[in-house]
Amino acid sequence: MVQRVREVLIFLFLALFAKANGSEKPNHWGRSESVRLPPPPPPLTQEENASYCLSWRLAVEANNVRAWRTVPVQCLRYVETYMIGGQYEKDVALIVDQILSYAGGIVVSGDGLDAWVFDVDDTCISNVFYYKGKRYGCDPYDPSGFRAWAIRGGCPAVPGMLDLFNKLVDMGFKIFLVTGRDEENLGQPTIDNLHNQGFQTYERLILRTAAYKGQSAVTYKSDIRNQLVKQGYRIWGNVGDQWSDLQGECLGNRTFKLPNPMYFVP
Amino acid sequence: MVQRVREVLIFLFLALFAKANGSEKPNHWGRSESVRLPPPPPPLTQEENASYCLSWRLAVEANNVRAWRTVPVQCLRYVETYMIGGQYEKDVALIVDQILSYAGGIVVSGDGLDAWVFDVDDTCISNVFYYKGKRYGCDPYDPSGFRAWAIRGGCPAVPGMLDLFNKLVDMGFKIFLVTGRDEENLGQPTIDNLHNQGFQTYERLILRTAAYKGQSAVTYKSDIRNQLVKQGYRIWGNVGDQWSDLQGECLGNRTFKLPNPMYFVP
Repeated sequence: MVQRVREVLIFLFLALFAKANGSEKPNHWGRSESVRLPPPPPPLTQEENASYCLSWRLAVEANNVRAWRTVPVQCLRYVETYMIGGQYEKDVALIVDQILSYAGGIVVSGDGLDAWVFDVDDTCISNVFYYKGKRYGCDPYDPSGFRAWAIRGGCPAVPGMLDLFNKLVDMGFKIFLVTGRDEENLGQPTIDNLHNQGFQTYERLILRTAAYKGQSAVTYKSDIRNQLVKQGYRIWGNVGDQWSDLQGECLGNRTFKLPNPMYFVP
Repeated sequence: MVQRVREVLIFLFLALFAKANGSEKPNHWGRSESVRLPPPPPPLTQEENASYCLSWRLAVEANNVRAWRTVPVQCLRYVETYMIGGQYEKDVALIVDQILSYAGGIVVSGDGLDAWVFDVDDTCISNVFYYKGKRYGCDPYDPSGFRAWAIRGGCPAVPGMLDLFNKLVDMGFKIFLVTGRDEENLGQPTIDNLHNQGFQTYERLILRTAAYKGQSAVTYKSDIRNQLVKQGYRIWGNVGDQWSDLQGECLGNRTFKLPNPMYFVP
Protein backbone atom coordinates (compact mmCIF):
# COMPACT_ATOMS: atom_id res chain seq x y z
CA MET A 1 0.00 0.00 0.00
CA VAL A 2 2.82 2.36 0.95
CA GLN A 3 4.51 1.36 -2.31
CA ARG A 4 1.33 2.13 -4.28
CA VAL A 5 0.98 5.54 -2.63
CA ARG A 6 4.63 6.27 -3.40
CA GLU A 7 4.11 5.29 -7.06
CA VAL A 8 1.06 7.53 -7.36
CA LEU A 9 2.99 10.44 -5.81
CA ILE A 10 5.92 9.90 -8.20
CA PHE A 11 3.50 9.80 -11.10
CA LEU A 12 1.80 13.05 -10.02
CA PHE A 13 5.17 14.70 -9.52
CA LEU A 14 6.35 13.64 -12.98
CA ALA A 15 3.07 14.76 -14.56
CA LEU A 16 3.37 18.21 -12.92
CA PHE A 17 7.01 18.42 -13.90
CA ALA A 18 6.13 17.62 -17.52
CA LYS A 19 3.45 20.35 -17.43
CA ALA A 20 5.85 22.90 -15.97
CA ASN A 21 8.24 22.06 -18.78
CA GLY A 22 5.79 22.93 -21.52
CA SER A 23 8.14 24.92 -23.75
CA GLU A 24 7.82 27.32 -26.60
CA LYS A 25 9.51 26.30 -29.81
CA PRO A 26 8.95 27.26 -33.45
CA ASN A 27 6.86 24.90 -35.61
CA HIS A 28 7.40 24.08 -39.29
CA TRP A 29 6.02 27.41 -40.37
CA GLY A 30 8.22 29.40 -38.05
CA ARG A 31 5.37 30.17 -35.65
CA SER A 32 5.87 29.58 -31.99
CA GLU A 33 3.54 27.13 -30.24
CA SER A 34 3.40 25.48 -26.90
CA VAL A 35 4.86 21.93 -26.99
CA ARG A 36 4.24 19.83 -23.98
CA LEU A 37 6.27 16.78 -23.22
CA PRO A 38 3.95 13.78 -23.26
CA PRO A 39 3.20 12.53 -19.77
CA PRO A 40 5.21 9.44 -18.90
CA PRO A 41 3.31 6.16 -18.77
CA PRO A 42 2.09 5.36 -15.28
CA PRO A 43 4.67 3.30 -13.43
CA LEU A 44 4.01 -0.41 -13.07
CA THR A 45 2.28 -1.42 -9.89
CA GLN A 46 4.17 -3.79 -7.63
CA GLU A 47 1.92 -6.60 -8.85
CA GLU A 48 2.51 -5.83 -12.54
CA ASN A 49 6.22 -5.63 -11.87
CA ALA A 50 6.33 -9.01 -10.10
CA SER A 51 4.36 -10.47 -12.99
CA TYR A 52 6.88 -9.16 -15.52
CA CYS A 53 9.85 -10.35 -13.45
CA LEU A 54 8.29 -13.79 -13.11
CA SER A 55 7.94 -13.96 -16.91
CA TRP A 56 11.54 -12.85 -17.26
CA ARG A 57 12.83 -15.41 -14.75
CA LEU A 58 10.85 -18.20 -16.42
CA ALA A 59 12.24 -17.20 -19.82
CA VAL A 60 15.79 -17.26 -18.41
CA GLU A 61 15.29 -20.73 -16.97
CA ALA A 62 13.74 -22.05 -20.20
CA ASN A 63 16.68 -20.62 -22.18
CA ASN A 64 14.46 -18.21 -24.10
CA VAL A 65 16.33 -15.14 -22.89
CA ARG A 66 20.02 -15.53 -23.67
CA ALA A 67 23.22 -13.55 -23.43
CA TRP A 68 21.71 -11.10 -20.96
CA ARG A 69 24.22 -8.81 -19.29
CA THR A 70 22.30 -7.70 -16.22
CA VAL A 71 19.07 -8.35 -14.40
CA PRO A 72 16.40 -5.81 -15.45
CA VAL A 73 16.69 -3.12 -12.81
CA GLN A 74 12.97 -3.22 -12.02
CA CYS A 75 13.48 -6.85 -10.96
CA LEU A 76 16.07 -6.11 -8.25
CA ARG A 77 13.68 -6.62 -5.33
CA TYR A 78 11.97 -9.51 -7.10
CA VAL A 79 15.25 -11.41 -7.58
CA GLU A 80 16.35 -10.60 -4.03
CA THR A 81 13.09 -11.96 -2.64
CA TYR A 82 13.34 -14.98 -4.89
CA MET A 83 16.92 -15.80 -3.88
CA ILE A 84 16.71 -15.25 -0.13
CA GLY A 85 12.97 -15.46 0.58
CA GLY A 86 12.60 -19.23 0.21
CA GLN A 87 11.39 -19.88 -3.35
CA TYR A 88 14.90 -20.50 -4.72
CA GLU A 89 15.48 -23.18 -2.10
CA LYS A 90 12.14 -24.79 -2.91
CA ASP A 91 12.93 -24.77 -6.62
CA VAL A 92 16.29 -26.44 -5.94
CA ALA A 93 14.67 -28.99 -3.62
CA LEU A 94 12.20 -30.07 -6.29
CA ILE A 95 15.02 -30.55 -8.80
CA VAL A 96 17.04 -32.54 -6.23
CA ASP A 97 14.01 -34.81 -5.82
CA GLN A 98 13.90 -35.29 -9.60
CA ILE A 99 17.61 -36.10 -9.69
CA LEU A 100 17.30 -38.68 -6.92
CA SER A 101 14.24 -40.23 -8.52
CA TYR A 102 16.07 -40.56 -11.84
CA ALA A 103 19.33 -41.76 -10.25
CA GLY A 104 17.46 -44.35 -8.21
CA GLY A 105 16.30 -45.99 -11.44
CA ILE A 106 19.82 -46.46 -12.81
CA VAL A 107 21.47 -49.86 -12.42
CA VAL A 108 24.99 -48.90 -11.34
CA SER A 109 27.67 -51.28 -12.56
CA GLY A 110 30.56 -52.33 -10.34
CA ASP A 111 33.26 -50.97 -12.64
CA GLY A 112 33.41 -47.49 -11.10
CA LEU A 113 32.67 -45.77 -14.39
CA ASP A 114 29.14 -44.50 -13.67
CA ALA A 115 29.56 -40.75 -13.48
CA TRP A 116 27.77 -37.50 -12.76
CA VAL A 117 29.08 -34.09 -13.76
CA PHE A 118 28.41 -31.05 -11.57
CA ASP A 119 29.24 -27.43 -12.07
CA VAL A 120 30.63 -25.62 -8.99
CA ASP A 121 29.43 -21.98 -8.74
CA ASP A 122 25.79 -21.76 -7.74
CA THR A 123 25.52 -25.50 -8.21
CA CYS A 124 27.60 -26.80 -5.27
CA ILE A 125 28.48 -23.54 -3.56
CA SER A 126 26.54 -20.30 -3.59
CA ASN A 127 27.52 -16.78 -4.61
CA VAL A 128 24.30 -15.19 -3.42
CA PHE A 129 26.07 -13.14 -0.73
CA TYR A 130 28.51 -11.79 -3.29
CA TYR A 131 25.68 -10.92 -5.66
CA LYS A 132 23.83 -9.13 -2.89
CA GLY A 133 26.60 -6.53 -3.20
CA LYS A 134 26.06 -6.47 -6.95
CA ARG A 135 22.37 -5.69 -6.62
CA TYR A 136 21.55 -9.35 -7.32
CA GLY A 137 22.88 -9.07 -10.84
CA CYS A 138 21.51 -5.62 -11.72
CA ASP A 139 25.17 -4.51 -11.79
CA PRO A 140 27.28 -5.88 -14.64
CA TYR A 141 29.79 -8.69 -14.16
CA ASP A 142 32.89 -7.57 -12.26
CA PRO A 143 35.70 -10.09 -12.87
CA SER A 144 38.14 -8.71 -10.28
CA GLY A 145 35.41 -8.32 -7.66
CA PHE A 146 34.34 -11.89 -8.20
CA ARG A 147 37.91 -13.17 -8.04
CA ALA A 148 38.46 -11.40 -4.71
CA TRP A 149 35.28 -13.00 -3.36
CA ALA A 150 36.18 -16.48 -4.65
CA ILE A 151 39.72 -16.30 -3.17
CA ARG A 152 38.19 -15.85 0.28
CA GLY A 153 36.72 -19.34 -0.04
CA GLY A 154 33.61 -18.38 1.88
CA CYS A 155 30.79 -19.53 -0.39
CA PRO A 156 28.19 -21.50 1.54
CA ALA A 157 26.83 -24.76 0.12
CA VAL A 158 23.77 -24.51 -2.10
CA PRO A 159 21.01 -25.92 0.14
CA GLY A 160 20.37 -29.60 -0.46
CA MET A 161 23.31 -30.20 -2.76
CA LEU A 162 25.70 -31.74 -0.24
CA ASP A 163 23.05 -34.24 0.75
CA LEU A 164 22.46 -35.02 -2.93
CA PHE A 165 26.20 -35.53 -3.45
CA ASN A 166 26.49 -37.96 -0.60
CA LYS A 167 23.46 -39.92 -1.77
CA LEU A 168 24.82 -40.22 -5.32
CA VAL A 169 28.20 -41.37 -3.97
CA ASP A 170 26.43 -43.91 -1.75
CA MET A 171 24.60 -45.20 -4.84
CA GLY A 172 27.98 -45.87 -6.44
CA PHE A 173 28.39 -42.90 -8.76
CA LYS A 174 31.64 -40.99 -9.27
CA ILE A 175 31.21 -37.23 -9.19
CA PHE A 176 33.22 -34.92 -11.41
CA LEU A 177 33.19 -31.22 -10.66
CA VAL A 178 33.80 -29.16 -13.78
CA THR A 179 34.21 -25.43 -13.27
CA GLY A 180 35.19 -22.45 -15.36
CA ARG A 181 37.21 -21.05 -12.43
CA ASP A 182 40.85 -20.75 -13.42
CA GLU A 183 43.16 -23.27 -11.82
CA GLU A 184 46.11 -20.97 -11.34
CA ASN A 185 44.41 -18.32 -9.21
CA LEU A 186 41.40 -20.10 -7.80
CA GLY A 187 42.49 -23.74 -7.57
CA GLN A 188 43.39 -23.92 -3.89
CA PRO A 189 40.70 -21.53 -2.61
CA THR A 190 38.08 -23.56 -4.51
CA ILE A 191 39.31 -26.85 -3.02
CA ASP A 192 39.35 -25.23 0.44
CA ASN A 193 35.86 -23.82 -0.04
CA LEU A 194 34.38 -27.10 -1.24
CA HIS A 195 36.01 -28.94 1.66
CA ASN A 196 34.94 -26.43 4.31
CA GLN A 197 31.39 -26.91 3.05
CA GLY A 198 31.62 -30.68 3.25
CA PHE A 199 32.11 -31.51 -0.44
CA GLN A 200 34.89 -34.06 -0.11
CA THR A 201 33.64 -37.18 -1.79
CA TYR A 202 34.02 -36.10 -5.41
CA GLU A 203 36.21 -38.09 -7.76
CA ARG A 204 37.91 -35.15 -9.43
CA LEU A 205 37.73 -31.36 -9.49
CA ILE A 206 38.52 -30.01 -12.93
CA LEU A 207 39.37 -26.33 -13.17
CA ARG A 208 40.11 -24.28 -16.26
CA THR A 209 43.79 -24.53 -17.16
CA ALA A 210 45.68 -22.01 -19.27
CA ALA A 211 45.02 -24.18 -22.36
CA TYR A 212 41.30 -23.37 -22.13
CA LYS A 213 41.69 -19.66 -21.40
CA GLY A 214 39.29 -17.54 -23.44
CA GLN A 215 37.20 -20.48 -24.62
CA SER A 216 33.45 -20.37 -24.10
CA ALA A 217 32.05 -22.50 -21.29
CA VAL A 218 30.26 -24.69 -23.85
CA THR A 219 33.49 -25.45 -25.73
CA TYR A 220 35.64 -25.93 -22.64
CA LYS A 221 33.15 -28.08 -20.73
CA SER A 222 32.30 -30.16 -23.83
CA ASP A 223 35.99 -30.93 -24.21
CA ILE A 224 36.31 -32.00 -20.57
CA ARG A 225 33.23 -34.23 -20.78
CA ASN A 226 34.53 -35.69 -24.02
CA GLN A 227 37.76 -36.67 -22.23
CA LEU A 228 35.76 -38.33 -19.46
CA VAL A 229 33.76 -40.34 -22.00
CA LYS A 230 37.01 -41.37 -23.75
CA GLN A 231 38.28 -42.55 -20.36
CA GLY A 232 35.29 -44.88 -20.28
CA TYR A 233 32.98 -42.97 -17.96
CA ARG A 234 29.24 -43.11 -18.56
CA ILE A 235 27.85 -39.67 -17.77
CA TRP A 236 24.40 -40.37 -16.39
CA GLY A 237 23.63 -36.85 -15.27
CA ASN A 238 24.91 -33.34 -15.72
CA VAL A 239 23.88 -30.61 -13.30
CA GLY A 240 24.49 -26.88 -13.61
CA ASP A 241 22.95 -23.48 -13.08
CA GLN A 242 23.87 -22.25 -16.58
CA TRP A 243 22.60 -23.50 -19.93
CA SER A 244 26.24 -23.39 -21.07
CA ASP A 245 26.89 -26.24 -18.61
CA LEU A 246 24.21 -28.28 -20.34
CA GLN A 247 24.85 -27.67 -24.03
CA GLY A 248 27.46 -28.91 -26.48
CA GLU A 249 28.93 -32.41 -26.66
CA CYS A 250 28.81 -35.46 -24.39
CA LEU A 251 26.03 -33.89 -22.35
CA GLY A 252 25.23 -37.00 -20.39
CA ASN A 253 22.07 -39.04 -20.39
CA ARG A 254 20.08 -36.31 -18.59
CA THR A 255 20.70 -32.70 -17.77
CA PHE A 256 19.32 -30.71 -14.84
CA LYS A 257 19.16 -26.93 -14.86
CA LEU A 258 19.37 -25.33 -11.44
CA PRO A 259 17.85 -21.86 -11.19
CA ASN A 260 19.99 -18.76 -11.43
CA PRO A 261 18.38 -15.41 -12.22
CA MET A 262 21.48 -13.41 -11.17
CA TYR A 263 23.91 -13.84 -14.05
CA PHE A 264 24.46 -15.47 -17.44
CA VAL A 265 27.64 -17.29 -18.48
CA PRO A 266 27.97 -17.59 -22.26
CA MET B 1 -8.90 -17.03 5.15
CA VAL B 2 -11.85 -19.38 4.58
CA GLN B 3 -9.37 -21.76 2.93
CA ARG B 4 -7.06 -21.59 5.95
CA VAL B 5 -9.95 -22.25 8.37
CA ARG B 6 -11.05 -25.19 6.26
CA GLU B 7 -7.52 -26.60 6.27
CA VAL B 8 -7.28 -26.28 10.04
CA LEU B 9 -10.64 -28.04 10.45
CA ILE B 10 -9.58 -30.87 8.15
CA PHE B 11 -6.35 -31.18 10.10
CA LEU B 12 -8.19 -31.36 13.44
CA PHE B 13 -10.66 -33.87 12.04
CA LEU B 14 -7.81 -36.08 10.76
CA ALA B 15 -5.92 -35.78 14.03
CA LEU B 16 -9.05 -36.84 16.00
CA PHE B 17 -9.73 -39.63 13.54
CA ALA B 18 -6.15 -40.92 13.92
CA LYS B 19 -6.57 -40.83 17.71
CA ALA B 20 -9.87 -42.70 17.59
CA ASN B 21 -8.16 -45.34 15.48
CA GLY B 22 -5.51 -46.12 18.06
CA SER B 23 -5.68 -49.91 17.78
CA GLU B 24 -4.60 -52.84 19.86
CA LYS B 25 -2.25 -55.28 18.20
CA PRO B 26 0.25 -57.79 19.56
CA ASN B 27 3.90 -56.75 19.71
CA HIS B 28 6.94 -58.92 19.01
CA TRP B 29 6.57 -60.67 22.36
CA GLY B 30 2.95 -61.47 21.83
CA ARG B 31 1.77 -58.83 24.26
CA SER B 32 -0.93 -56.46 23.27
CA GLU B 33 -0.10 -52.73 23.28
CA SER B 34 -1.77 -49.62 22.04
CA VAL B 35 -0.45 -48.56 18.61
CA ARG B 36 -1.48 -45.15 17.45
CA LEU B 37 -1.31 -44.16 13.82
CA PRO B 38 1.05 -41.21 13.47
CA PRO B 39 -0.84 -37.97 12.90
CA PRO B 40 -0.82 -36.96 9.25
CA PRO B 41 1.36 -34.00 8.32
CA PRO B 42 -0.56 -30.73 8.40
CA PRO B 43 -1.97 -29.96 4.95
CA LEU B 44 -0.13 -27.36 2.92
CA THR B 45 -1.40 -23.84 3.25
CA GLN B 46 -2.57 -22.16 0.06
CA GLU B 47 0.69 -20.19 0.01
CA GLU B 48 2.85 -23.30 0.43
CA ASN B 49 0.86 -25.00 -2.29
CA ALA B 50 1.32 -22.13 -4.75
CA SER B 51 5.01 -22.14 -3.93
CA TYR B 52 5.28 -25.86 -4.70
CA CYS B 53 3.29 -25.53 -7.92
CA LEU B 54 5.49 -22.63 -9.03
CA SER B 55 8.57 -24.81 -8.46
CA TRP B 56 6.91 -27.60 -10.42
CA ARG B 57 5.95 -25.34 -13.32
CA LEU B 58 9.45 -23.87 -13.48
CA ALA B 59 10.95 -27.36 -13.49
CA VAL B 60 8.64 -28.38 -16.34
CA GLU B 61 9.64 -25.33 -18.40
CA ALA B 62 13.36 -25.89 -17.73
CA ASN B 63 12.98 -29.54 -18.79
CA ASN B 64 13.92 -30.84 -15.35
CA VAL B 65 10.65 -32.70 -14.89
CA ARG B 66 10.10 -35.02 -17.83
CA ALA B 67 7.68 -37.68 -18.97
CA TRP B 68 5.03 -36.54 -16.51
CA ARG B 69 1.59 -38.02 -17.11
CA THR B 70 -0.64 -35.56 -15.28
CA VAL B 71 -0.46 -32.24 -13.48
CA PRO B 72 -0.08 -32.81 -9.69
CA VAL B 73 -3.66 -32.68 -8.44
CA GLN B 74 -2.82 -30.07 -5.80
CA CYS B 75 -1.83 -27.74 -8.65
CA LEU B 76 -5.22 -27.81 -10.41
CA ARG B 77 -6.26 -24.31 -9.28
CA TYR B 78 -2.74 -23.01 -9.68
CA VAL B 79 -2.52 -24.13 -13.33
CA GLU B 80 -6.05 -22.84 -14.01
CA THR B 81 -5.15 -19.43 -12.59
CA TYR B 82 -1.89 -19.44 -14.50
CA MET B 83 -3.51 -20.30 -17.84
CA ILE B 84 -6.54 -18.04 -17.72
CA GLY B 85 -5.60 -15.43 -15.12
CA GLY B 86 -3.13 -13.48 -17.25
CA GLN B 87 0.35 -14.78 -16.37
CA TYR B 88 0.45 -17.27 -19.26
CA GLU B 89 -0.27 -14.47 -21.74
CA LYS B 90 2.44 -12.32 -20.17
CA ASP B 91 4.95 -15.17 -20.36
CA VAL B 92 4.11 -15.71 -24.05
CA ALA B 93 4.35 -11.97 -24.74
CA LEU B 94 7.86 -11.78 -23.29
CA ILE B 95 8.98 -14.71 -25.45
CA VAL B 96 7.40 -13.10 -28.54
CA ASP B 97 9.45 -9.98 -27.78
CA GLN B 98 12.59 -12.11 -27.59
CA ILE B 99 11.75 -13.79 -30.90
CA LEU B 100 11.20 -10.46 -32.65
CA SER B 101 14.36 -9.02 -31.18
CA TYR B 102 16.36 -12.01 -32.41
CA ALA B 103 14.64 -12.14 -35.83
CA GLY B 104 15.22 -8.42 -36.32
CA GLY B 105 18.96 -9.01 -36.18
CA ILE B 106 18.97 -11.59 -38.98
CA VAL B 107 19.93 -10.46 -42.48
CA VAL B 108 17.31 -12.19 -44.62
CA SER B 109 18.56 -13.20 -48.05
CA GLY B 110 16.42 -12.81 -51.14
CA ASP B 111 16.42 -16.49 -52.04
CA GLY B 112 13.30 -17.40 -50.06
CA LEU B 113 15.10 -20.04 -48.01
CA ASP B 114 15.14 -18.31 -44.62
CA ALA B 115 12.78 -20.38 -42.52
CA TRP B 116 11.12 -20.65 -39.14
CA VAL B 117 9.52 -23.80 -37.80
CA PHE B 118 6.47 -23.60 -35.56
CA ASP B 119 4.54 -26.30 -33.77
CA VAL B 120 0.72 -26.01 -33.96
CA ASP B 121 -1.03 -27.10 -30.73
CA ASP B 122 -0.56 -24.55 -27.96
CA THR B 123 1.93 -22.75 -30.14
CA CYS B 124 -0.31 -21.31 -32.87
CA ILE B 125 -3.73 -22.39 -31.60
CA SER B 126 -4.76 -23.05 -28.03
CA ASN B 127 -6.29 -26.10 -26.38
CA VAL B 128 -6.87 -24.41 -23.05
CA PHE B 129 -10.67 -24.71 -23.34
CA TYR B 130 -10.38 -28.43 -24.02
CA TYR B 131 -8.03 -28.86 -21.07
CA LYS B 132 -10.42 -26.99 -18.83
CA GLY B 133 -12.64 -30.07 -19.19
CA LYS B 134 -9.66 -32.25 -18.31
CA ARG B 135 -8.99 -30.40 -15.07
CA TYR B 136 -6.14 -28.49 -16.77
CA GLY B 137 -4.13 -31.66 -17.19
CA CYS B 138 -4.87 -33.29 -13.84
CA ASP B 139 -6.76 -35.93 -15.86
CA PRO B 140 -4.64 -38.23 -18.02
CA TYR B 141 -4.36 -37.81 -21.79
CA ASP B 142 -7.53 -38.87 -23.60
CA PRO B 143 -6.72 -39.50 -27.29
CA SER B 144 -10.32 -39.89 -28.50
CA GLY B 145 -11.51 -36.89 -26.48
CA PHE B 146 -8.74 -34.76 -27.94
CA ARG B 147 -9.47 -35.97 -31.48
CA ALA B 148 -13.15 -35.03 -31.10
CA TRP B 149 -12.11 -31.56 -29.89
CA ALA B 150 -9.58 -31.06 -32.70
CA ILE B 151 -12.08 -32.14 -35.39
CA ARG B 152 -14.36 -29.29 -34.32
CA GLY B 153 -11.69 -26.85 -35.45
CA GLY B 154 -12.52 -24.40 -32.70
CA CYS B 155 -9.15 -23.72 -31.08
CA PRO B 156 -8.58 -19.99 -30.62
CA ALA B 157 -5.23 -18.46 -31.55
CA VAL B 158 -2.57 -18.34 -28.85
CA PRO B 159 -2.48 -14.64 -27.93
CA GLY B 160 0.24 -12.73 -29.78
CA MET B 161 1.22 -15.52 -32.12
CA LEU B 162 -0.69 -14.39 -35.20
CA ASP B 163 0.89 -10.98 -34.94
CA LEU B 164 4.31 -12.63 -34.59
CA PHE B 165 3.61 -14.76 -37.69
CA ASN B 166 2.70 -11.79 -39.79
CA LYS B 167 5.75 -9.86 -38.67
CA LEU B 168 8.08 -12.75 -39.49
CA VAL B 169 6.46 -13.13 -42.92
CA ASP B 170 6.84 -9.38 -43.48
CA MET B 171 10.53 -9.70 -42.62
CA GLY B 172 10.88 -12.25 -45.42
CA PHE B 173 10.85 -15.54 -43.54
CA LYS B 174 9.00 -18.67 -44.69
CA ILE B 175 7.04 -20.35 -41.95
CA PHE B 176 6.70 -24.12 -41.70
CA LEU B 177 4.12 -25.56 -39.36
CA VAL B 178 5.12 -29.00 -38.16
CA THR B 179 2.54 -30.86 -36.09
CA GLY B 180 2.12 -34.33 -34.66
CA ARG B 181 -1.60 -34.26 -35.59
CA ASP B 182 -2.34 -37.07 -38.02
CA GLU B 183 -3.00 -35.98 -41.57
CA GLU B 184 -5.72 -38.51 -42.35
CA ASN B 185 -8.15 -37.58 -39.57
CA LEU B 186 -7.13 -34.06 -38.63
CA GLY B 187 -5.72 -32.61 -41.84
CA GLN B 188 -8.72 -30.62 -43.03
CA PRO B 189 -9.98 -29.56 -39.57
CA THR B 190 -6.50 -28.29 -38.74
CA ILE B 191 -6.28 -26.26 -41.95
CA ASP B 192 -9.77 -24.90 -41.31
CA ASN B 193 -8.92 -24.02 -37.71
CA LEU B 194 -5.67 -22.28 -38.61
CA HIS B 195 -7.45 -20.30 -41.34
CA ASN B 196 -10.43 -19.33 -39.19
CA GLN B 197 -7.92 -17.93 -36.70
CA GLY B 198 -6.09 -15.96 -39.37
CA PHE B 199 -3.02 -18.16 -39.85
CA GLN B 200 -2.88 -18.15 -43.62
CA THR B 201 0.57 -16.92 -44.53
CA TYR B 202 2.55 -20.05 -43.72
CA GLU B 203 4.60 -21.73 -46.43
CA ARG B 204 3.62 -25.29 -45.61
CA LEU B 205 1.65 -27.22 -43.00
CA ILE B 206 3.23 -30.59 -42.34
CA LEU B 207 1.07 -33.15 -40.55
CA ARG B 208 2.01 -36.66 -39.44
CA THR B 209 1.46 -39.12 -42.26
CA ALA B 210 0.99 -42.88 -41.84
CA ALA B 211 4.73 -43.39 -42.41
CA TYR B 212 5.48 -41.61 -39.12
CA LYS B 213 2.76 -43.30 -37.08
CA GLY B 214 4.00 -44.43 -33.68
CA GLN B 215 7.26 -42.48 -33.87
CA SER B 216 8.17 -40.14 -31.05
CA ALA B 217 7.75 -36.43 -31.67
CA VAL B 218 11.53 -35.95 -31.48
CA THR B 219 12.18 -38.55 -34.20
CA TYR B 220 9.34 -37.47 -36.46
CA LYS B 221 9.99 -33.73 -36.20
CA SER B 222 13.76 -34.19 -36.57
CA ASP B 223 13.14 -36.05 -39.80
CA ILE B 224 10.87 -33.30 -41.13
CA ARG B 225 13.39 -30.57 -40.24
CA ASN B 226 16.14 -32.63 -41.81
CA GLN B 227 14.15 -32.71 -45.07
CA LEU B 228 13.71 -28.94 -44.96
CA VAL B 229 17.45 -28.45 -44.48
CA LYS B 230 18.14 -30.81 -47.38
CA GLN B 231 15.78 -28.69 -49.49
CA GLY B 232 18.11 -25.79 -48.76
CA TYR B 233 16.14 -24.01 -46.03
CA ARG B 234 18.05 -22.26 -43.26
CA ILE B 235 16.04 -22.80 -40.06
CA TRP B 236 16.64 -19.64 -38.05
CA GLY B 237 14.17 -20.34 -35.32
CA ASN B 238 12.12 -23.19 -33.96
CA VAL B 239 9.17 -22.48 -31.68
CA GLY B 240 7.13 -24.98 -29.68
CA ASP B 241 5.42 -25.57 -26.37
CA GLN B 242 7.06 -28.99 -25.88
CA TRP B 243 10.73 -29.81 -25.38
CA SER B 244 10.18 -32.62 -27.90
CA ASP B 245 9.65 -29.88 -30.51
CA LEU B 246 13.06 -28.47 -29.65
CA GLN B 247 15.26 -31.53 -29.32
CA GLY B 248 16.82 -33.91 -31.83
CA GLU B 249 18.35 -33.00 -35.18
CA CYS B 250 18.37 -29.85 -37.32
CA LEU B 251 16.99 -27.82 -34.44
CA GLY B 252 17.52 -24.47 -36.06
CA ASN B 253 19.79 -21.66 -35.02
CA ARG B 254 17.67 -20.85 -31.95
CA THR B 255 14.84 -22.54 -30.15
CA PHE B 256 12.05 -20.91 -28.15
CA LYS B 257 10.05 -22.83 -25.56
CA LEU B 258 6.51 -21.57 -25.05
CA PRO B 259 4.98 -22.39 -21.68
CA ASN B 260 2.68 -25.34 -21.26
CA PRO B 261 2.03 -26.74 -17.79
CA MET B 262 -0.99 -28.82 -18.93
CA TYR B 263 0.53 -31.80 -20.72
CA PHE B 264 3.76 -33.45 -21.82
CA VAL B 265 4.38 -34.91 -25.28
CA PRO B 266 7.27 -37.42 -25.31
